[in-house]
Amino acid sequence: MIERYSREEISKIWELESKFGYYLTVELAVCKAYNKIGKISDNALSEICEKASFSVERIDEIEREVKHDVIAFLTNINESVGKENAKYIHMGLTSSDVIDTAFALQIKDSAKIILNDLDGLLSVIKNMAFKYKNTLCIGRSHGVHAEVMTFGFKLLNWYDELERAKMGLEYALKEISVGQISGPVGTYSNLPIEIEKLTCDYLGLEPAKISTQIISRDRHAKFMSALAIIVSLIEKFATEIRHLQKTEVREVEESFSNSQKGSSAMPHKKNPILCENLCGLARVVRSNMITAFENMNLWHERDISHSSAERIIFPDSLILVDFILARFEKIMENLVVLEDNMLKNTELYGGVIYSQKIMLKLIEKGYSREDAYKIVQTNALKALAGNNFKNELLNDVKVTSKLTKEEIEQCFNKDEYLANIDQIFSRFE
Amino acid sequence: MIERYSREEISKIWELESKFGYYLTVELAVCKAYNKIGKISDNALSEICEKASFSVERIDEIEREVKHDVIAFLTNINESVGKENAKYIHMGLTSSDVIDTAFALQIKDSAKIILNDLDGLLSVIKNMAFKYKNTLCIGRSHGVHAEVMTFGFKLLNWYDELERAKMGLEYALKEISVGQISGPVGTYSNLPIEIEKLTCDYLGLEPAKISTQIISRDRHAKFMSALAIIVSLIEKFATEIRHLQKTEVREVEESFSNSQKGSSAMPHKKNPILCENLCGLARVVRSNMITAFENMNLWHERDISHSSAERIIFPDSLILVDFILARFEKIMENLVVLEDNMLKNTELYGGVIYSQKIMLKLIEKGYSREDAYKIVQTNALKALAGNNFKNELLNDVKVTSKLTKEEIEQCFNKDEYLANIDQIFSRFE
Amino acid sequence: MIERYSREEISKIWELESKFGYYLTVELAVCKAYNKIGKISDNALSEICEKASFSVERIDEIEREVKHDVIAFLTNINESVGKENAKYIHMGLTSSDVIDTAFALQIKDSAKIILNDLDGLLSVIKNMAFKYKNTLCIGRSHGVHAEVMTFGFKLLNWYDELERAKMGLEYALKEISVGQISGPVGTYSNLPIEIEKLTCDYLGLEPAKISTQIISRDRHAKFMSALAIIVSLIEKFATEIRHLQKTEVREVEESFSNSQKGSSAMPHKKNPILCENLCGLARVVRSNMITAFENMNLWHERDISHSSAERIIFPDSLILVDFILARFEKIMENLVVLEDNMLKNTELYGGVIYSQKIMLKLIEKGYSREDAYKIVQTNALKALAGNNFKNELLNDVKVTSKLTKEEIEQCFNKDEYLANIDQIFSRFE
Amino acid sequence: MIERYSREEISKIWELESKFGYYLTVELAVCKAYNKIGKISDNALSEICEKASFSVERIDEIEREVKHDVIAFLTNINESVGKENAKYIHMGLTSSDVIDTAFALQIKDSAKIILNDLDGLLSVIKNMAFKYKNTLCIGRSHGVHAEVMTFGFKLLNWYDELERAKMGLEYALKEISVGQISGPVGTYSNLPIEIEKLTCDYLGLEPAKISTQIISRDRHAKFMSALAIIVSLIEKFATEIRHLQKTEVREVEESFSNSQKGSSAMPHKKNPILCENLCGLARVVRSNMITAFENMNLWHERDISHSSAERIIFPDSLILVDFILARFEKIMENLVVLEDNMLKNTELYGGVIYSQKIMLKLIEKGYSREDAYKIVQTNALKALAGNNFKNELLNDVKVTSKLTKEEIEQCFNKDEYLANIDQIFSRFE
Repeated sequence: MIERYSREEISKIWELESKFGYYLTVELAVCKAYNKIGKISDNALSEICEKASFSVERIDEIEREVKHDVIAFLTNINESVGKENAKYIHMGLTSSDVIDTAFALQIKDSAKIILNDLDGLLSVIKNMAFKYKNTLCIGRSHGVHAEVMTFGFKLLNWYDELERAKMGLEYALKEISVGQISGPVGTYSNLPIEIEKLTCDYLGLEPAKISTQIISRDRHAKFMSALAIIVSLIEKFATEIRHLQKTEVREVEESFSNSQKGSSAMPHKKNPILCENLCGLARVVRSNMITAFENMNLWHERDISHSSAERIIFPDSLILVDFILARFEKIMENLVVLEDNMLKNTELYGGVIYSQKIMLKLIEKGYSREDAYKIVQTNALKALAGNNFKNELLNDVKVTSKLTKEEIEQCFNKDEYLANIDQIFSRFE
Repeated sequence: MIERYSREEISKIWELESKFGYYLTVELAVCKAYNKIGKISDNALSEICEKASFSVERIDEIEREVKHDVIAFLTNINESVGKENAKYIHMGLTSSDVIDTAFALQIKDSAKIILNDLDGLLSVIKNMAFKYKNTLCIGRSHGVHAEVMTFGFKLLNWYDELERAKMGLEYALKEISVGQISGPVGTYSNLPIEIEKLTCDYLGLEPAKISTQIISRDRHAKFMSALAIIVSLIEKFATEIRHLQKTEVREVEESFSNSQKGSSAMPHKKNPILCENLCGLARVVRSNMITAFENMNLWHERDISHSSAERIIFPDSLILVDFILARFEKIMENLVVLEDNMLKNTELYGGVIYSQKIMLKLIEKGYSREDAYKIVQTNALKALAGNNFKNELLNDVKVTSKLTKEEIEQCFNKDEYLANIDQIFSRFE
Repeated sequence: MIERYSREEISKIWELESKFGYYLTVELAVCKAYNKIGKISDNALSEICEKASFSVERIDEIEREVKHDVIAFLTNINESVGKENAKYIHMGLTSSDVIDTAFALQIKDSAKIILNDLDGLLSVIKNMAFKYKNTLCIGRSHGVHAEVMTFGFKLLNWYDELERAKMGLEYALKEISVGQISGPVGTYSNLPIEIEKLTCDYLGLEPAKISTQIISRDRHAKFMSALAIIVSLIEKFATEIRHLQKTEVREVEESFSNSQKGSSAMPHKKNPILCENLCGLARVVRSNMITAFENMNLWHERDISHSSAERIIFPDSLILVDFILARFEKIMENLVVLEDNMLKNTELYGGVIYSQKIMLKLIEKGYSREDAYKIVQTNALKALAGNNFKNELLNDVKVTSKLTKEEIEQCFNKDEYLANIDQIFSRFE
Repeated sequence: MIERYSREEISKIWELESKFGYYLTVELAVCKAYNKIGKISDNALSEICEKASFSVERIDEIEREVKHDVIAFLTNINESVGKENAKYIHMGLTSSDVIDTAFALQIKDSAKIILNDLDGLLSVIKNMAFKYKNTLCIGRSHGVHAEVMTFGFKLLNWYDELERAKMGLEYALKEISVGQISGPVGTYSNLPIEIEKLTCDYLGLEPAKISTQIISRDRHAKFMSALAIIVSLIEKFATEIRHLQKTEVREVEESFSNSQKGSSAMPHKKNPILCENLCGLARVVRSNMITAFENMNLWHERDISHSSAERIIFPDSLILVDFILARFEKIMENLVVLEDNMLKNTELYGGVIYSQKIMLKLIEKGYSREDAYKIVQTNALKALAGNNFKNELLNDVKVTSKLTKEEIEQCFNKDEYLANIDQIFSRFE
């Protein structure tokens, strides 16, 4: 991923240096497992643990010759531990045992950061939801005013969605947090079967119940789809902010610093650029998911076509998700909420948004649903053409023959519309 | 495709009955080609042409036995032409010769309808563009007011994009309008090589330059991507209408009939449902494209994995594109354009949208770009906070020390902003 | 979905008639809930339940006028229940309360069928895995012979993957099995909040914890991704069968009936057409997932762009998944397993596949891993060039100086390679 | 893109330093255009051209303050050219004029490299096709032996497909090679309209016929789909090589160097890793296309959501395509073609692959197509069960009653099958 969209902690996990570090961690855990079952002496083990080291440059050099990066890595490790100990390294393993188990560790460490990001963002959103619990704003369906609600209620819905996405990620993370030490084609043909469980225990992973030289890629596709859900939600939230910052709406604004400039040509511009930015990045992560699904169809016990793609899409997606969450948390923390404009927008067209209440009252008074609908609709459409809804109603004998002025006024009472907000919020306390 | 989103003419092309009709057309064209080179007598040919017929039920019945739909079709044709003539049918061919050549004809006939739709829509958009050439409206970047332009100019951009998409479709159509009569694995092993060209001539197709029993699926992927471009543009246009119909904006509206109802609960609702509908359908067509690309990777000289997918995605996409274009043409024809609202929206916040002109004038008068920017920005941000931009400028000595009141007023002249509109339109005359 | 790929039971759920049936079920459950809290009398309720009915034709007719299918449906229902009762129908609801809750029921009923299919297929695969537990075959990585394993072991891996996919579907199903009765923008503005829980209880759904007039579409995207995982696995299994049926490999074959024909031109053809068919269909379902993800980004409290897409992709995907699972179960049940060919294939090139054991033995005897590798590789490559691996070893002094003939022979013992198979199987008992 | 999959020349185009270089090129071309129409003096222009420079560090520093990279760039340029000249820089432009025009140049320069790669690869494939024009091999449909053909014929089909993909790229490149200098919302509100054409002429681009502050993203989606076609073809070719290198098939092999190692565990492995690698990378590029299509739906005259995505997918895709083409060219140049194995594979099962000819002969002798089919199929299936096809025929009286031994033998003549190969090749001379 390009530097512009990378944060340091998570990027580090995916550097070449780190990757080989994870490889080494796996190989050493295997040695410990062998030691546990008496196949490597305590002495040899401690010597191995002490001496084992690598350099990316040396691995590179060997890889150019043998054209296999794990073998290059192993050759370099063997150089470091000395001839006697070298025979214990990678004993009975195949490359994928190391690659896939290390990959699980990298993903797990990255996911930990992302779960942390999620917790931070969830907390910010929840606090804001409660803060704006009673801040009146218009609810919109089809982009068109529907009925009043509150800004906090909007945010509480986000919270609910994002919390579900977090649970989805945890589920997917559990499925991908598996290791394997099962040798060629997964039959443990030349290694003691108990090595796998012992190694995974050391590493904090579950051993795969079964494997065919690789961890099955359904786990990876599912994990990527959990990431895609997360970014698609952020895209939705960011889109909402972009909508609310439109010049005619202006209910919220991204923070705009003193020295900031919005356009090279137009000094008046204050644009929701951070949210737009996140919408674009969400598309990238979501598309990476397709690749992860296409990676599932590996040939026979495994082919290696997934490998090149994963070298790109996993770091890229994880780094981007971290960036997206962190940036969105900052956007929310600094969001300018224009409560006056929210209120003003609810009052457009003389309260057409209270049409449901009028209709229900008319039904109560004896009109059929169809007739009541038509009466209210006629007045509402006049209002939308430039008049005032309440006035129209007060002048329509079909309405006034059933409802008193007070009853009509009562229908425009915002509080009735918000009567259940507290109870909804109480579900999240 | 479900009936709701299907129009009759194009749907008919993809019915089973029609498909076998296309198969027969291909088989008869092959017979004519054989007759041309003297391998089928005039008598036999005319008997075949006269007698050859099929019934979908009978084909079905045979297919259940032989589990191969082309063989079932051929067996049924053979039953109709009589034993003597039967030996001439499908002579030296393999099923794909018939399937892929007939498929090209179906696509070509469907594309003809779609190109017609495009012509109709292009003409509607162009007429509207010219009609509203001078209808002032705000141009928006980032969803935020930028500078004035005209509604016709917006539509002219659509016209340009759609015209390009039409050319893209024509290019893709040309690539897919090829037939093949080349036998198993494409070597003409048991048929005269000249049959292919003769047959294709009869059918109005180009013969494939080379083939491996099937027409290469890159042609089909490219064709689907041309469709995806078209629907993505319609999605963009429909999204624009949805934006412009938002309650706070209300610059255009989908037509809303007298008896129409917008919501079961809220009688005041007038929603851009047709445009929303098209946005959803666009996603479906675009996703089908992925399948078409995945279909390219067929094994060896051909496998048949593309076939099941194509039975779905080609009719579905073509029927949807026809529906989308026809519906969008109707939306445009009946679009309610609220010119007063367009004008009103340009006047929000006291003309901040003219900030560029002020800045350029200040640069002209000696300020550096950076200084001029800052001066104008300061006044613009005050306006956005609730004041009037022009008034702010008139009260800022940094401005008035360089510009007279008249010079400032002049910057708010819309006409200067639109000075080039005519010339742009002239490119499309 | 086209008839060719549809099975009756699941297709019925998605017919127009059924959809309105589900709508009615929801509306009646709401009436029962109102009755429970005393807002509808027992009499009125039983009259409503008795009389409420609809006809698709009549709904169609009304929809053409009001351009809103739920309103059309309600109008028709109101006609059936009589004027007095009509006022109770849809009281305080908005269309999406009915649509989304009914949609959840349709999905749940469809998923039940699919879970059933999965159980059937899982059972077939498990039985076959145990049946062929000891059937020797070659394990392949990169498409190239790796080491021996068993055919049952291959199938047991499939079982593990598919079982995980089933759990994934169950998780997603749980998330999507929610209803909402929350009125416009989800605030229960004109209906008692307890109606939602009561209604959902009647319907066997969880009430959404919060909603904005619609059930959030992350649930639907996740559900589609669970389906995409399933079909991607089937695609993988089907691809494996296609590989194993290749002429040079021929380890398994799809069943081929007596009257079946494989090619119109080549009578010798027996093709894995059913598996190829499933590969194509898998692509279609997987692409539909993209649309479901794009559907998440709805505007504000809801827009309706997802609706048109969902009318297509949900029935299509569910019907296809049912078809795919049922067809694959049949393929497996009738699979011809050519055990002799499996054995024969393990013996190609004189046992090069036992190279690991030789290498490990040489390391044991004192060679470094690097040296042992090189010695074994040299002999293996000679074998691949047309010689016999074991003979090469027996003639290589670098080998024979360390290993006796017996020790070498011992490395070619298949049983050692399979020593852990039983233990792996025991995890699935 | 990660270094592993990047080649230097194309990567350089996408470095930050280069990007700002392209920006500068555009700004200077605009100055030249202004000079041409007399708005910038010769002196000022030459001073600007001489002095204008930037440093990425300084731009970075300014961007942190103004949060807008183009403004940061411009501020830095203004620092370099001096106060007097600074006012001429970016005169009447908006950032996108620079960004999108520079982006077109970057794409064009990258495409030039890729077209070069394509020419190289096309030439290698064509030469190999002619070299192996007469190298007999089996043609396969459904993965199953169909009829004989030649290895050169297979490659000639690749050539045809790739040539078409090249033309598609050229078409898309032409569409994307446009610039714009049209100011905010594309109305040339504060710049002379003729500047655009003059600038584009200097830069070797076509001016966009119309624009709305940005170049319409349909051009970019189409360009990405042209790349997706190319990589999907390479994926298909690479998949073919992987198939042909399978242990049971072994008709070709990727070159395997002396010091190369195929597996850390199994010294006998020679895997088609380069082709597998390309299959994975192809998926990545193809998925990026989805993002490019989603980028089309920008709001109003433009939003900036595409920008973040394009910073990733364009360099990544272009760098990958270059890498893929270069790597595939090397694979082909070094491909080991095992002609003996090709021949041997055609002879499996005693020539069942000649079944069509036998059937056609029997039809000629009076059998109906249906009867002839059945007779030949019966014998072919016996052969597949382990017998020899020719022997079966010679022992079947239904055959021998119509065909002499010589006539039967004649049907097994490979040359007849290849009779048209020369003529097919002649189309490509």
